[in-house]
Amino acid sequence: MIFLDAAATTPVRREVLEAMWPYLTGEFGNPSSHHSLGDTAATALAGARTTTAKALGCRSGEIIFTSGGTEADNLAVKGIALARRAADPGLDRVAISAVEHPAVEESARYLERVHGFGVDVIPVDRYGQVTEEALAAVLGPRTALVSVMYANNEVGTVQPIARLAALARGRGIPFHTDAVQAAGWLPLDTGALGVDALSISGHKLGAPKGSGALFVRGRIRLEPLVHGGGQERGRRSGTENVAGAVALATALTLARAAQPRPAEQAAEGVASDVAAEPAQDPARRVANLRDDFIAAVLAGVPGAILTGHPTERLPAVASFCFPGTSGESVLLELERQGVICSSGSACAAGSDAPSPVLLAMGIEPEVAQTAVRFSFDATVTAEELRQAAAAVGIAVAGVQALGT
Amino acid sequence: MIFLDAAATTPVRREVLEAMWPYLTGEFGNPSSHHSLGDTAATALAGARTTTAKALGCRSGEIIFTSGGTEADNLAVKGIALARRAADPGLDRVAISAVEHPAVEESARYLERVHGFGVDVIPVDRYGQVTEEALAAVLGPRTALVSVMYANNEVGTVQPIARLAALARGRGIPFHTDAVQAAGWLPLDTGALGVDALSISGHKLGAPKGSGALFVRGRIRLEPLVHGGGQERGRRSGTENVAGAVALATALTLARAAQPRPAEQAAEGVASDVAAEPAQDPARRVANLRDDFIAAVLAGVPGAILTGHPTERLPAVASFCFPGTSGESVLLELERQGVICSSGSACAAGSDAPSPVLLAMGIEPEVAQTAVRFSFDATVTAEELRQAAAAVGIAVAGVQALGT
Repeated sequence: MIFLDAAATTPVRREVLEAMWPYLTGEFGNPSSHHSLGDTAATALAGARTTTAKALGCRSGEIIFTSGGTEADNLAVKGIALARRAADPGLDRVAISAVEHPAVEESARYLERVHGFGVDVIPVDRYGQVTEEALAAVLGPRTALVSVMYANNEVGTVQPIARLAALARGRGIPFHTDAVQAAGWLPLDTGALGVDALSISGHKLGAPKGSGALFVRGRIRLEPLVHGGGQERGRRSGTENVAGAVALATALTLARAAQPRPAEQAAEGVASDVAAEPAQDPARRVANLRDDFIAAVLAGVPGAILTGHPTERLPAVASFCFPGTSGESVLLELERQGVICSSGSACAAGSDAPSPVLLAMGIEPEVAQTAVRFSFDATVTAEELRQAAAAVGIAVAGVQALGT
Repeated sequence: MIFLDAAATTPVRREVLEAMWPYLTGEFGNPSSHHSLGDTAATALAGARTTTAKALGCRSGEIIFTSGGTEADNLAVKGIALARRAADPGLDRVAISAVEHPAVEESARYLERVHGFGVDVIPVDRYGQVTEEALAAVLGPRTALVSVMYANNEVGTVQPIARLAALARGRGIPFHTDAVQAAGWLPLDTGALGVDALSISGHKLGAPKGSGALFVRGRIRLEPLVHGGGQERGRRSGTENVAGAVALATALTLARAAQPRPAEQAAEGVASDVAAEPAQDPARRVANLRDDFIAAVLAGVPGAILTGHPTERLPAVASFCFPGTSGESVLLELERQGVICSSGSACAAGSDAPSPVLLAMGIEPEVAQTAVRFSFDATVTAEELRQAAAAVGIAVAGVQALGT
């Protein structure tokens, strides 16, 4: 089996399992307990927080552990918007891009439906990118928060986050980014990015499902999503998932090896940094394999269309439309050939509706329904991708011949 | 070391680790993915849901997996109250007992602070119990929800949930109970209890931290806490923690052995059932050990006061005040003697303020500050509790002699 659906989820890495194991077994204390078992758990949690903060270039107190990326996105969007409006009732709008994950999109819609906020949707270009002009056009004196994802989960397009964040913050508006797909591949230094909040998910990185974190810059106030015993400095109550936090911190540290070093970042923004990496960088290695794979698919499959940005895209995501097929039929045929991939986001898998992300990029609905996404982890090999590209050609031809 | 702080957290049981292991390793699929790996994960999740539903006497579709008990409490209290008010703006009050866990209390305060709800606090008697009269006195035509915990986390008092639920539901008001401490010790049949919503937590039961569930009766509408990809039938978004759900289901099934069988439940309510169990029942065995421990402490420690109900209490919780000491000093002395326990809830450990739960029961603040809680798991032995009772006598005498 060739697993090319790493953007949906990844196996837990062996080093991560080893790091979390003590906290699933002997060291089972509750970090809030004031005895030796509790102390050991609290120390482990503090260590995980420090490690995570180091990976994100922030202070420990700016990390909130959550149950995953979706909760982190909800906490950022709802939490910041509600706290800002509580301080200033005139701040009653949020701005999100047209290609956000449902965790951000539905959080904004909740603010609209239940709290009476207005939602401004920032359009994207045909590559799925938000331009500075498009962002500037929606910002106003009532904008409480901007949320634009770092890299898209369906097409892999990377946004010019540093420039967009600078624009919003220049007007005093906090900027959140969903970095769930970017984590492990792109620089996560929150200082260099200039973001006020950033969400990550453990299970996209080799940590277990049920782990995640939100960075929130110290001065930003936040209405909690989950209230109770006051854990996480009152910002996320509930007994802390110590093993999950240790796992996330370990996975982030391991993944940093695949990220460009800060010194190598181009001055003009982050989105273009990926291409500037030296060849020995793991992210660059995967990006090269991705480019070969894209070229092979485009050459071998008549009519195939690459979706998303041709260069400013995640090293590990190649996404296409195959007009004249159905995406689900192609997936089924690929799985018969031992290649596991996806029609887009796992969250929408099996849905008949064309992807809103592709529609926002101007792709026609009947073409959008033929989307197939291939996403890799850092262990992917050239041989696997050669086999996969060949399988795609056979699968698409077969489906087209059958007229399904 | 004698661990008598099981109400704070428990070690993960070996059988639970074995059950969850495949989903931390080879079977790492995302349940939303439409391929073989996803299918395996979805099947495991469905199995965990069926098992959990069986333990709670409900349908699978009535189980929502969460990241823990606190999230489940938040989802129930906020989710039901907000959905009911959205359908009928006149439903703008919630009623909670005076001894709720902060997860319920702070959720109600959030509704008050952010959504303009009124909060009615139901007083308790000196044993920490809510009477039907006290509940009836606060209910009105504007009550959107009642939330009364099944068993208290600090003193172990068990509420007459079936009777209280019947009273609320007789007036058409949904009834939620926080069963985080009760789970594993008391019957959880949601039909017999007559509740509309019930929260449980994995890590109190031998499953890992970060797992929990909410039962919500089918006809009850719910505004989600976490919005996004629409997992858990749209009621709790985010990639499901498959290993956590499997762990919770396994732990619940193992714990059912310690619960009275439904046929043995007394007709007049659940709170009195514990005492009616035959001696061979694991819960009865622990309750007998608890009674011996309580008698030994009361006999051996001059001035010791048992807090909570003398008989209608969790089998595994013994809680005291030791006037003339400080609870924290006694804990420290006990730990030196190898006995690990707590001053009350782990959430409030280290706080100088006297417990609101004890104050609500009419205990004076200077006495409430001397609280010590001993909580057992099902493996506790008579010898351990004999040693612990002796240690308590020595610790209290030592602290009193030092005047600390």
